[in-house]
Amino acid sequence: MALDAIQKNILHEVADLDGIPQGAYNIRANGTSAGRNTTANIDIVTKEDKPGIDIIIKPGTKGESVHIPVVLTESGLKDMVYNDFYVGEGADVTIVAGCGISNCGDQDSQHDGIHTFHVGKNAKVKYVEKHYGEGDGKGARILNPVTNVYQEEGSYVEMEMVQIKGVDSTVRTNVAELADGATLLIHEALMTHGTQKATSDYKVALNGEGSSADVVSRSVAKDDSEQIFEVAIEGNTACNGHAACDAIIMGNAHVVAIPRLDAKNVDAALIHEAAIGKIAGDQLIKLMSLGLTEEEAEEQIVAGFLR
Amino acid sequence: MALDAIQKNILHEVADLDGIPQGAYNIRANGTSAGRNTTANIDIVTKEDKPGIDIIIKPGTKGESVHIPVVLTESGLKDMVYNDFYVGEGADVTIVAGCGISNCGDQDSQHDGIHTFHVGKNAKVKYVEKHYGEGDGKGARILNPVTNVYQEEGSYVEMEMVQIKGVDSTVRTNVAELADGATLLIHEALMTHGTQKATSDYKVALNGEGSSADVVSRSVAKDDSEQIFEVAIEGNTACNGHAACDAIIMGNAHVVAIPRLDAKNVDAALIHEAAIGKIAGDQLIKLMSLGLTEEEAEEQIVAGFLR
Repeated sequence: MALDAIQKNILHEVADLDGIPQGAYNIRANGTSAGRNTTANIDIVTKEDKPGIDIIIKPGTKGESVHIPVVLTESGLKDMVYNDFYVGEGADVTIVAGCGISNCGDQDSQHDGIHTFHVGKNAKVKYVEKHYGEGDGKGARILNPVTNVYQEEGSYVEMEMVQIKGVDSTVRTNVAELADGATLLIHEALMTHGTQKATSDYKVALNGEGSSADVVSRSVAKDDSEQIFEVAIEGNTACNGHAACDAIIMGNAHVVAIPRLDAKNVDAALIHEAAIGKIAGDQLIKLMSLGLTEEEAEEQIVAGFLR
Repeated sequence: MALDAIQKNILHEVADLDGIPQGAYNIRANGTSAGRNTTANIDIVTKEDKPGIDIIIKPGTKGESVHIPVVLTESGLKDMVYNDFYVGEGADVTIVAGCGISNCGDQDSQHDGIHTFHVGKNAKVKYVEKHYGEGDGKGARILNPVTNVYQEEGSYVEMEMVQIKGVDSTVRTNVAELADGATLLIHEALMTHGTQKATSDYKVALNGEGSSADVVSRSVAKDDSEQIFEVAIEGNTACNGHAACDAIIMGNAHVVAIPRLDAKNVDAALIHEAAIGKIAGDQLIKLMSLGLTEEEAEEQIVAGFLR
């Protein structure tokens, strides 16, 4: 694979990769493929009608992983891909799909990844998506990821959505539809600083009997940054839905939380909590009494909160 | 006062009145005044530019009450009034403003009351608004109340909003703006049945330092009824906001809860919880083991929940 030092660093940040990953992978750098590997059970096929790939995971595939990180280091590049995951019945896989932008130029760099998951009966998916930006150019680093999750009976999907640093503008759109007995867990960790803006929108439809969803967002908004968190859970049958949003605000940041519970069936049980506030004074004082400066104490509290 | 038996019963339901109330009052029946009393401290003046009254409460008025119930017993009547309350500095008063509709005819009866409160410095207001409908006509009973609350420094407003029975369609719109040190408590109790529809919309702007708001809604949706609960709390300075929405669904009812927390200042602390679900099975079983039928047990749980 032909990746330079910056690209390698970004790969490390978004996918915890310090070399060629195990198993299947497709690495996209500046809009083109920089490496691909398939396995006996996981095929990756380039789409012919639009940019992107199909990732086809055979039924019963166990313990394998797919890495599809994206790296952008050219200023002014606008990249959009459609990646479709077909996870076969009873499979149990990990999918890592980070995106990192290093923009040292004056033009905006943007990556929009549209990920659609067709999760078969009783299949289990762990999905990790990390976003990261760096570079001191004036050009903005923009990421607008979309996930569409279609879960068949008894399937289990865990999604870890992380955006810790350096992304100027994000609109994250997530839609999930769950059949009987399907389970969805979403953990979002988000930090914004400077004048960054981040919007997260989750829509979960609990269509199947006994389906359940748990959407938890933890975010920190620093400086003049703005965050909007929207989560809508629709209970259409006997189901359980829970959403929680905890946000810490610092500086002149602005955070909006708009959950929406929609119970359309007497056996739908839906719960939501949200809390927005600054770091508790006594937590700060405790850490400072142990010898930390105020900044160090804040940093430690924020890191613990987002972990 | 010229009120018939039906009107007297409605007056009892919406204002706990079994006769002429103590203190100031203005009773409106079928679009016209059916009685008015003012006191040395509380004046009631008919508006000249539009239907409605101005209620002027002198600064320092303590322990007095104002009753302004509305009774509609004519089918097909559409009534709209603007009532403005001017509560003087340091006053401490109770305002009761129920509305009842008895519609035995085939045409819709509707009452829209727009209540605006100008609450002076350090004044204290307890406001009770009860809605009630009855009558077996085909005509709908429609109530669209609006409250606008402007609270000056250090004022305290407690609002009890109750709609237990018989209102076919309600859109309740409430806006509040709080200055320094002002406190607002809202308790909503709502029950819908049949094919009733009820929407409650609360918007609270915490503009003043040290202001606080607590909005609590408890509702029960039975049969094929629909409820939408929206509450938006905006924290613009050092303030505390809390909203909670608990709803019980029964039958084929549909409940939507859409809170919105908007923290625009680092010292704004905003919290929300919502829970929608059916009556807990173990609660029912416990009461039934004490000899109650399932309906009696449900009734008792619902009554306790809404109290």
